[in-house]
Amino acid sequence: MPRYKLTIEYDGTGLVGWQRQDSGPSVQATLEAAAERLDGNPCVFFAAGRTDAGVHATGQVTHVDLVKDLSAEAVRDGLNFWLTREGSRRQVAVVESELVDDQFHARFSAIERRYLYRISNRRSPPVLERGRVWWVKRPLDAAAMHEAAQCLVGHHDFTTFRASECQAASPMKTLDVLSISRVADEVHLIAESRSFLHHQVRNMVGTLKLVGEGKWRVGDVRKALEARDRRKGGQTAPPDGLYLTGVSY
Amino acid sequence: MPRYKLTIEYDGTGLVGWQRQDSGPSVQATLEAAAERLDGNPCVFFAAGRTDAGVHATGQVTHVDLVKDLSAEAVRDGLNFWLTREGSRRQVAVVESELVDDQFHARFSAIERRYLYRISNRRSPPVLERGRVWWVKRPLDAAAMHEAAQCLVGHHDFTTFRASECQAASPMKTLDVLSISRVADEVHLIAESRSFLHHQVRNMVGTLKLVGEGKWRVGDVRKALEARDRRKGGQTAPPDGLYLTGVSY
Repeated sequence: MPRYKLTIEYDGTGLVGWQRQDSGPSVQATLEAAAERLDGNPCVFFAAGRTDAGVHATGQVTHVDLVKDLSAEAVRDGLNFWLTREGSRRQVAVVESELVDDQFHARFSAIERRYLYRISNRRSPPVLERGRVWWVKRPLDAAAMHEAAQCLVGHHDFTTFRASECQAASPMKTLDVLSISRVADEVHLIAESRSFLHHQVRNMVGTLKLVGEGKWRVGDVRKALEARDRRKGGQTAPPDGLYLTGVSY
Repeated sequence: MPRYKLTIEYDGTGLVGWQRQDSGPSVQATLEAAAERLDGNPCVFFAAGRTDAGVHATGQVTHVDLVKDLSAEAVRDGLNFWLTREGSRRQVAVVESELVDDQFHARFSAIERRYLYRISNRRSPPVLERGRVWWVKRPLDAAAMHEAAQCLVGHHDFTTFRASECQAASPMKTLDVLSISRVADEVHLIAESRSFLHHQVRNMVGTLKLVGEGKWRVGDVRKALEARDRRKGGQTAPPDGLYLTGVSY
């Protein structure tokens, strides 16, 4: 059975997240239904990042084994046909497709995952970007947020930024990049790591927002990190602003 | 009664357009309902551009007279409160507000209107940008489109690009700018004129797409213009990709 590495884009609005669940439509189930129409057989997708409900992706990476021997382009176009046919949600698309050997595993072979978090930082509510950003009305100091973020870069115990339901064996992670900058009326946060704890990016964003608003000083983020206590961190930022943008192998 | 010049952003998806109509929700009716909640009196909005169903705006300009004597900021924030309260569509927002004298008229004082048309030009269907772009799968030659577009700049009879239901007294218009460029996997068209005929931008886009696809030569656009016959132009591009981005006074 040929194995395909597929790069996936999705609008997570109204989806229960990557993983198949009984509670509603998931990205995984959407892809598997399309692949079964294409291949004529039940298919299982594996993903680099199991994104939460409402989280988007421009560069999620998945793999799937098919029975039919199709070209990479035929798999991309065939899946997109079934994903966007009349009556479908049209929230998931395949942007790249590549034939890989059966040693490749979208989740276990990944060495780096990249996320973008978008905050709309303006007085007026975003209407064209609603569901795509977190709206924070009060002006944020992106430079202070960036400075405060640098204490999170490196190898740390991220318990303060870990959801209680996180299933990782250890709270120790190495954060390679955490960069915050202003882009017109948005504030963008870019995070890169081999892997992240559950809600880690959204909890870091909610904490750094306190610095941006001037409620916290730069040094308060280090104190929160060192406390190793979720209650010492800021709120969990909403899923709307989060995008899985890429994965390295 | 104080007069306010309000710059408006909207997601036109599912709206019948700027103008109040019995057939569905309009931008005008949405704004007038919010203003009546704020002012306690029936209000009438006038707009620089009466955009069609499904067309978006980032810089529509309107004016309204209120009975209450409110600051410009209070009008912006008060309208945004009513426009985005629980249960509302949240498709319309006020981005700027300014107190103006009663000589100012959003429609009749305007001397330049600017539109952007976005084409998503890639193999995969746009899912995060669906409803925000026109998806054209086949690769477009943006440079050829730009070259062909230049014969439309200037003072011309635009009958070929005019909707049959257009109510303008004359098909003569002066097009100041028509610029096409590639921006990553999108092709952007920028059009500037004192005023446009009904569907003029969308009909120009649909015609220039034929050049981008290689079906028409650059010179065929001039021939279509000179024919002064709507049947000699290309298709009307869908409203999804069109944005009213700004108005000059």
